[in-house]
Amino acid sequence: MTRLPLATRATDLVGSIIDSSTSLLAGQRHDIVRFAMGSPAPEAIPADTLRDIAATELGRPDAYDYAATEGDPRLRDALLGVLADTPDAPTPDRLLITAGGMQGLDLAFKLFVDPGDLVVVESPTYTNGSATALSYQAELLEVPVDDEGMQVDTLEDLVARAGRTPKAIYAIPTFQNPSGASMSVERRHRLLELTRQWGSVLIDDDPYGLLRFEGADVPSLHALAGGDPLVFSVRTFSKIIGPGLRVGWVDADPSLQQLLINAKQAMDTCTNLPLQRLVAGFLEGGHLQPHLVAQRSAYRERKRAMQDALTEHFAGTAHWTDPHGGFFLWVTFDHDVDTEALFEVALAEGVAFIPGNAFSPSKRFPDALRLCFASSTPERIREGVARLRRAVDSMGKR
Amino acid sequence: MTRLPLATRATDLVGSIIDSSTSLLAGQRHDIVRFAMGSPAPEAIPADTLRDIAATELGRPDAYDYAATEGDPRLRDALLGVLADTPDAPTPDRLLITAGGMQGLDLAFKLFVDPGDLVVVESPTYTNGSATALSYQAELLEVPVDDEGMQVDTLEDLVARAGRTPKAIYAIPTFQNPSGASMSVERRHRLLELTRQWGSVLIDDDPYGLLRFEGADVPSLHALAGGDPLVFSVRTFSKIIGPGLRVGWVDADPSLQQLLINAKQAMDTCTNLPLQRLVAGFLEGGHLQPHLVAQRSAYRERKRAMQDALTEHFAGTAHWTDPHGGFFLWVTFDHDVDTEALFEVALAEGVAFIPGNAFSPSKRFPDALRLCFASSTPERIREGVARLRRAVDSMGKR
Repeated sequence: MTRLPLATRATDLVGSIIDSSTSLLAGQRHDIVRFAMGSPAPEAIPADTLRDIAATELGRPDAYDYAATEGDPRLRDALLGVLADTPDAPTPDRLLITAGGMQGLDLAFKLFVDPGDLVVVESPTYTNGSATALSYQAELLEVPVDDEGMQVDTLEDLVARAGRTPKAIYAIPTFQNPSGASMSVERRHRLLELTRQWGSVLIDDDPYGLLRFEGADVPSLHALAGGDPLVFSVRTFSKIIGPGLRVGWVDADPSLQQLLINAKQAMDTCTNLPLQRLVAGFLEGGHLQPHLVAQRSAYRERKRAMQDALTEHFAGTAHWTDPHGGFFLWVTFDHDVDTEALFEVALAEGVAFIPGNAFSPSKRFPDALRLCFASSTPERIREGVARLRRAVDSMGKR
Repeated sequence: MTRLPLATRATDLVGSIIDSSTSLLAGQRHDIVRFAMGSPAPEAIPADTLRDIAATELGRPDAYDYAATEGDPRLRDALLGVLADTPDAPTPDRLLITAGGMQGLDLAFKLFVDPGDLVVVESPTYTNGSATALSYQAELLEVPVDDEGMQVDTLEDLVARAGRTPKAIYAIPTFQNPSGASMSVERRHRLLELTRQWGSVLIDDDPYGLLRFEGADVPSLHALAGGDPLVFSVRTFSKIIGPGLRVGWVDADPSLQQLLINAKQAMDTCTNLPLQRLVAGFLEGGHLQPHLVAQRSAYRERKRAMQDALTEHFAGTAHWTDPHGGFFLWVTFDHDVDTEALFEVALAEGVAFIPGNAFSPSKRFPDALRLCFASSTPERIREGVARLRRAVDSMGKR
């Protein structure tokens, strides 16, 4: 029998453990409170509207043909229209439709990372994103995040200590996953300065920016960069319409567009066309804005319900973040709790979360966990946090 | 202004020119006969059935959530059921749902190719596939194809001359794109021997195998390999249901499944779920077999119409292949015709094709072209070939 000739990178392809909880969830009690996955709630999916759009769009044979690699013209036009009112509206020569935000990251790391290159990631971070950098054999440098986002002073120190500059900086500056933190304007400016000074590229992964439910808008890195090509913006419909669509977009310097098209052709030829048409119909029909308004309101209520429940059950034993948008709270225990061990105890109590170590390539957060407040009603959130309390108590008695 | 720090591979990302004709087609006369793209005809797309399935499937919110990275269980089960009657039925531990066949190739080259590795490709070949190998910085070795597929003796000579063995061999052994040739059983056996001897992996890209309309079945490379893990099979619904779905699959050794899942997570998290559900519904409803029977019959008629028209207009001045399935004829002129120059003249006459050089990284086929007979009715095929004759005549007069 042949031994397969794996490439070096294949032996490095350690997946993120973010999704490992899903398989563990299978076969558990049916009423489990799901704080784990970063999915919109079933009631936040506009399935009826999408089905009605499908009744027209998906009966046309041309909806099943290959799409243009840069995206279906109808979706591109509709998206440019929707974003025209936002502070950093893309132009057609900056826009590429992708298979969700994840493919935007795959494109970015493919375009910018050679084996051995240094790539800065936040700590904690979205480890599916850092895994993509690893798949191009990047070396990662983890930079701590606090309430104002990535600690840019620490970044500068760590880069000086590394003795070489990063090729790319991977940031989730707005409603960060998993911490919920947003980077302050001052830090954004300073991060752009450093990026420019180092000749790096700054990858701005922002799946949640349109889901601000509190606080004032913060300008995007692209807007602050003033036309400098160094910002590569990755966006998606996953959190605002539905993740299963696998439709997102990249907003990047026009000099990159042909390279992006060539790279995407070699990945999947084009993004699926029927769902590009569904999303186009959704945008053309004016459904997005009222949908966002409704979701923001629901998510604000859910965040507060979760914070109130945490105060009731964990005041004095843990602390947590206060995001102004997005899906997540980041909870850190004040005493020694192994959240990886807690995971299975909690599952038995009927509540799922993701342990903090899943958000760090070097597993720096053994006593933290991520809770998604977006997927559950306030009532279920209260029940889930009470179950989490029982799980922690039961751990303590062991 | 910053100069963007592109990776080495980004500067190599020369896209295939296969798709370049589509943009050239825009703005041309409306009744152009389209022999260029490898798309099923509009009448071959089961859009009405898919829309009816969508009316049920796409009204369910869970259809828009993340899918399992290895594929939605319903589609996996339905596909295993459909393939159970075929000579090389996969098992669950060999199956991964992908974003079309193209992502299967991206996964294969990501798993097996380190920078500088030698990768064998057929000549002519599907250059979107060879471009993917290049995107992982492979070095390509082109091996000629004749009526029995890749010339395996020549492969052995070329590898000996190269002084090193290939890491991967990329083959389209059945109804090859663009030649239409199928590899004989003898050559398949010999190719497997060489692959085993060299410790290579053999990537079997087969989008057309279920569209045999003549001749006897030839065993697949996987079936002939007798359980040896060296065959990596890439399959897709693109040609048998619709390319815009971007739903395909990989059938590979079980030892690769976790690596494939990890690699795919870092590419796009999962394949889009709504269209996995549409395809599952199509298979569960028993629609695939009658659809294939109807398509095979239509494609046989269209191939013959094209061959008859070529005989009428080009007998003695060109020769062409006689495929037993798939979508394409490969036409080679017996006298000196520059088919890249011919392309625009033909477009002005109202017929589109793809020039031969688009199917070779080193542009070895200046006097050949690929004609897709699948997308046009016999009547339109006759008209298109007559227009092609006028285009060649008009070139001769220049």
